[in-house]
Amino acid sequence: MPPINRLRSQDPDFSQSLRTLLAFDAEQDDSIEHVVADVLKDLRHRGDEALLEYTRRFDRVQASSVQALEIPRQEWQAALQALPQDQRAALEEAARRVRAYHERQKAESWSYTESDGTTLGQKITPLDRVGLYVPGGKAAYPSSVLMNAIPAKVAGVPEVVMVTPTPDGARNPIVLAAAAIAGVDRAWAIGGAQAVGALAYGTQTITPVDKIVGPGNAYVAAAKRRVFGTVGIDMIAGPSEILIIADGTTPADWIAMDLFSQAEHDELAQAILLCPDAAYLDQVQESIERLLPTMPRADIIRASLSGRGALILVDDLDQACAIANEIAPEHLEISTQQPEVWADKIRHAGAIFMGRYSSESLGDYCAGPNHVLPTSRTARFSSPLGVYDFQKRSSLINVSHQGAQSLGRIAATLAHGEGLQAHAGSAQYRLES
Amino acid sequence: MPPINRLRSQDPDFSQSLRTLLAFDAEQDDSIEHVVADVLKDLRHRGDEALLEYTRRFDRVQASSVQALEIPRQEWQAALQALPQDQRAALEEAARRVRAYHERQKAESWSYTESDGTTLGQKITPLDRVGLYVPGGKAAYPSSVLMNAIPAKVAGVPEVVMVTPTPDGARNPIVLAAAAIAGVDRAWAIGGAQAVGALAYGTQTITPVDKIVGPGNAYVAAAKRRVFGTVGIDMIAGPSEILIIADGTTPADWIAMDLFSQAEHDELAQAILLCPDAAYLDQVQESIERLLPTMPRADIIRASLSGRGALILVDDLDQACAIANEIAPEHLEISTQQPEVWADKIRHAGAIFMGRYSSESLGDYCAGPNHVLPTSRTARFSSPLGVYDFQKRSSLINVSHQGAQSLGRIAATLAHGEGLQAHAGSAQYRLES
Repeated sequence: MPPINRLRSQDPDFSQSLRTLLAFDAEQDDSIEHVVADVLKDLRHRGDEALLEYTRRFDRVQASSVQALEIPRQEWQAALQALPQDQRAALEEAARRVRAYHERQKAESWSYTESDGTTLGQKITPLDRVGLYVPGGKAAYPSSVLMNAIPAKVAGVPEVVMVTPTPDGARNPIVLAAAAIAGVDRAWAIGGAQAVGALAYGTQTITPVDKIVGPGNAYVAAAKRRVFGTVGIDMIAGPSEILIIADGTTPADWIAMDLFSQAEHDELAQAILLCPDAAYLDQVQESIERLLPTMPRADIIRASLSGRGALILVDDLDQACAIANEIAPEHLEISTQQPEVWADKIRHAGAIFMGRYSSESLGDYCAGPNHVLPTSRTARFSSPLGVYDFQKRSSLINVSHQGAQSLGRIAATLAHGEGLQAHAGSAQYRLES
Repeated sequence: MPPINRLRSQDPDFSQSLRTLLAFDAEQDDSIEHVVADVLKDLRHRGDEALLEYTRRFDRVQASSVQALEIPRQEWQAALQALPQDQRAALEEAARRVRAYHERQKAESWSYTESDGTTLGQKITPLDRVGLYVPGGKAAYPSSVLMNAIPAKVAGVPEVVMVTPTPDGARNPIVLAAAAIAGVDRAWAIGGAQAVGALAYGTQTITPVDKIVGPGNAYVAAAKRRVFGTVGIDMIAGPSEILIIADGTTPADWIAMDLFSQAEHDELAQAILLCPDAAYLDQVQESIERLLPTMPRADIIRASLSGRGALILVDDLDQACAIANEIAPEHLEISTQQPEVWADKIRHAGAIFMGRYSSESLGDYCAGPNHVLPTSRTARFSSPLGVYDFQKRSSLINVSHQGAQSLGRIAATLAHGEGLQAHAGSAQYRLES
């Protein structure tokens, strides 16, 4: 059995096969929903007391007060000092590049004045307070701290609050070091739905935030969905995906490893290669077979590739682009000569990696753009996490005396048409009699 | 009993009174949730057939096919031709101004090249297809068609599809005329959760969209929440609100009518006035008492003002701004001299109306900015509907051979730190040996 599915766009059932491959059921688990609903309700009513109780129960951490769960700044600084020099330099350089890229996303307020003196505009303001969820245990990625916190700080958010569970009291020093580098303002050793509830509703000790971002397990995701509206949230992410379009000029081993780098995340991750050259697909398959046994996470990679991965023979690169637009992948590598020609044809993708040197892994860590990207076809309507997620807009309307004469007549006509006479009256008062 | 609540910021229980006044429970109704879940499931599986069945049941419209429910373009054109001249001119001028304002919101793609030849950027693309929900019956507002459709068309969305229920077959000609003016591409006489399902999942006849916007009743709101993720949605709106900050220099009748214009929307709408001048608040109360009986929608206004409205005496305008930031109102009128001084202190508001001539009603219809605004304190983290809701971003990463050398080392260091060896391998392949 090949280690990865093989498809051809000319197969009569190709559309159906592709749909089956892409299908991912994000069905919500009722038992999780109920637990989370209860935790949030309890948190909202009992505050600190509930937070301490759930932290004892789920993380096995005994604390006499919520204040005792704050991770003091000295501890982050110590973690940063203790980091091996190469790790620290790499994190700092990654942070610098991420900051430089995101600086370009800052929106500025604008306004314009019309000939009658009426001024219209849009005022940009950062959010006051943002909560950043960082998973504990094996999924605690310092790169994720950088990618979530830096855009908020670039946006001008005065207070970024990190929460991270510390099962049995184990704190992750690299995560703390990353928080120090990213400019996080405070950190609490709490997690799960109870941490999401504390951030959304506030407790006696914890000030509520305006938005919660960052990845988490199914409980955290369910809690974020439930508090949405009380606070903003980022997207609920599905399994990570890569789609590679290749013309056959990139070494096959490189492409195999790029597919692995996605597949190693988890069994549900998806790695797909599109290429018009059947011989090249054979080479990549051979690379996969040869390299797979050497990978520390071979089991996960194997499960991902055989379950959800595919090497797909396409007619040509134009067809590859059309399929890419249908899939709207989180990550798209265009590993071809003159990649800009094909990138121009892509309408839907979270991030587009162009040319053989642009491996996804460079973007995951340090190229500069964000690694929090829309999954599960949501790139059709959503964007990478960015500074714009931490700024919001207010419309500005300053109508002059003269402007009120023309606008008031239009508004009154339309208001009467909609049967809203107070709207009409309010406009008409501003008219000269 | 006064027609509206009176509060003073110096009252010992002021914070609690204000919190009670603002409290709005958006609790979801379980029976609605179940109906909607069933309708959506059925729609997803049976498509056209289910859509026809629900349209028969809920709107009492018999159609032999879904195709027969399309509202042909000739019918919109006829509706536009039949519109009274003043209505048509008002709608067209409103559309022109809304378009002009929203043109300024268009984001452009950008990129930059680093000294080693690495290019990074952000590509802006419009959504492919947007669904616009327009309620039937009394809440069918042509201004809402303009406000939802024009930003999508300015963003460059090729296909804006309107759905609107037509109970007993009654089609609203002003809504159709507004659709023609706004540049809507297609229209279907369907509504409710079944229309939301048809837009999200597609049927044999209806092509699925990428995002659904526009107001609707509790069933429509529940359906939008449920299809979120499959498609994008705009915010689920709560009751509409106005907060007015006055220094006492605007005629009291004007302010009373501005409060009415919010209160006439529905009994849950909220209208609050903040002013440091007690005598002026008395004048406004007198205006309310005198003008209220003259209003066609007096009953709704009375219910809204007595239940959720308030005239609040504050210490000074600085305190008024602080309270406004706490409330984060959908609409904020700063009806004072030198309103820009106070506007500068406002961090959270959907739209800020500055000066005595800027009544909210002018913004509702024709000033230019959008009238779809964040309600229920969500202005703390979200923005007016805009062109940015119909464009999305893709990161562009084109790493040069030289760039891959420095970035590859950083990425490999960080990937090894996170235990992701395929990520490291993928970066290391790009290094020169």
